[in-house]
Amino acid sequence: MNKLNFISKQFQKAQNKPFELYVVTRIWHLLDDFSVKLITQQHVTRPEGRALTDMFFPQLHIHVEVDEGHHKRQIDWDKTREADIINATGHEVLRVDVTQDVGAVNAEIQRIVNHVRSRKNSVSDFKPWDIEAEQDPQTYIDKGSISLRDDCAFRTMVDAARCFGRDYKPNGIRKGGIKHPKEKGKMIWFPKLYKNGKWNNGISADETEITEIDESPETARSGIDRVLLGNIHRRIVFAKVKSPLGDIMYRFKGEYELEKELSNYDSGLLWKRVSTRVDTYGQKV
Amino acid sequence: MNKLNFISKQFQKAQNKPFELYVVTRIWHLLDDFSVKLITQQHVTRPEGRALTDMFFPQLHIHVEVDEGHHKRQIDWDKTREADIINATGHEVLRVDVTQDVGAVNAEIQRIVNHVRSRKNSVSDFKPWDIEAEQDPQTYIDKGSISLRDDCAFRTMVDAARCFGRDYKPNGIRKGGIKHPKEKGKMIWFPKLYKNGKWNNGISADETEITEIDESPETARSGIDRVLLGNIHRRIVFAKVKSPLGDIMYRFKGEYELEKELSNYDSGLLWKRVSTRVDTYGQKV
Repeated sequence: MNKLNFISKQFQKAQNKPFELYVVTRIWHLLDDFSVKLITQQHVTRPEGRALTDMFFPQLHIHVEVDEGHHKRQIDWDKTREADIINATGHEVLRVDVTQDVGAVNAEIQRIVNHVRSRKNSVSDFKPWDIEAEQDPQTYIDKGSISLRDDCAFRTMVDAARCFGRDYKPNGIRKGGIKHPKEKGKMIWFPKLYKNGKWNNGISADETEITEIDESPETARSGIDRVLLGNIHRRIVFAKVKSPLGDIMYRFKGEYELEKELSNYDSGLLWKRVSTRVDTYGQKV
Repeated sequence: MNKLNFISKQFQKAQNKPFELYVVTRIWHLLDDFSVKLITQQHVTRPEGRALTDMFFPQLHIHVEVDEGHHKRQIDWDKTREADIINATGHEVLRVDVTQDVGAVNAEIQRIVNHVRSRKNSVSDFKPWDIEAEQDPQTYIDKGSISLRDDCAFRTMVDAARCFGRDYKPNGIRKGGIKHPKEKGKMIWFPKLYKNGKWNNGISADETEITEIDESPETARSGIDRVLLGNIHRRIVFAKVKSPLGDIMYRFKGEYELEKELSNYDSGLLWKRVSTRVDTYGQKV
């Protein structure tokens, strides 16, 4: 997929509110900069709760909200639990009040464009949007690490595994996780972080805690015992999510460690984030 | 409805092709001129047949087509027979080839924007888009006439009738036509120009001929006799259509005259256009 295609699809998603498409497309065309990535309809968690922002610049941590006054949109969060939810704590949220006349709306849009442009220039480590590289394991192998700041999501578990020094055949991973090829006592984990089938996993709003709950009575206790008594108590997490374009992706969430004392048969296994950055490994290392 | 609302709705319609929304919104935002009206997904008839154009500037008679190479869109014309079809003979059609890279696409869009702007400046009688006035009978009463070039469509039959010197109550017209209040031997006609119920009317691609066919055996012949033997052989036509936003409108098509020799029980009544401009009348004249 090229950038034109990607941006066009982002535009197509921007339809929730009457004026959203006008605002989103105007900001984008006036900004006129394909080094800046755009996501529309981004699911976020914030200290005040979950939300959906109309426009998101992931490299700059800037969101834009189209305000229509009274018009409050209802979101059925249950239907979006598979969504690619990012943590937007500390992100900037700019607003456009579209209840004004068109001249005022356009002036507000121009101010946002100027602000986005100057933010881009002031971010010292700004990396131009590279639609091929961002999903290529080699990018992260060359870099030596994956960090939450990289906004990293792969299209397959095999791509994620490649970052840690192991090559699988296409579709070669058929379970929810693999042993870390290079680091002992660690696993690369690909969980669904929402209720699905026998699992009822979850992640806290600030993404520092994951709970892993097996709801089938036959395997729940034995599973907990096996993890607690085993020797793999750290997990590098790539959560299985639906991307903004509707395809499955595996989003990097950080490295988590088992909280033995807080894990039990009642509340399941508890994992706490211990790092937002993990090392990567090339095949020949 | 204000202009921002209208344009936002036009954007929402621009979704038939993957890149259409990108091209349409970019042309609009770079043009950045609310004196120019925009219609997306305009149904047109041309000498080569019916078509749907992606972007239409009615004041300038310019259409923009997004070309995706192989991608040929199928249109079910049967489902769009109620549409507001305008005659685009002699109109200009500009094309954007979106199979190129984004730089070339943007350059082509910039050329179109420049062209639209210079056309606007070269049209001697350019009238700025006025969303209130264009549907207000008073506009045409003040002007003294309605012409095909005015791109005139009213929201009600009552509004159309007002242009000819007669005030009806809201919903006061309950038939397909009324006598011209000021000119003898003429009718103001509000036909559906497609097959519907007992009628099977049609208009030729160049809009110079209307056929009126009653398909119910009980009334077909007597209806033809009544018109042929009557003394109203001219009709000012406002065709009932679905507007680009889905609401009913009555579009001015010109003045037509009965072709007595070519009208008969087999092929129905034939009306030929004799004028593209008609006089209007204020209430107190």
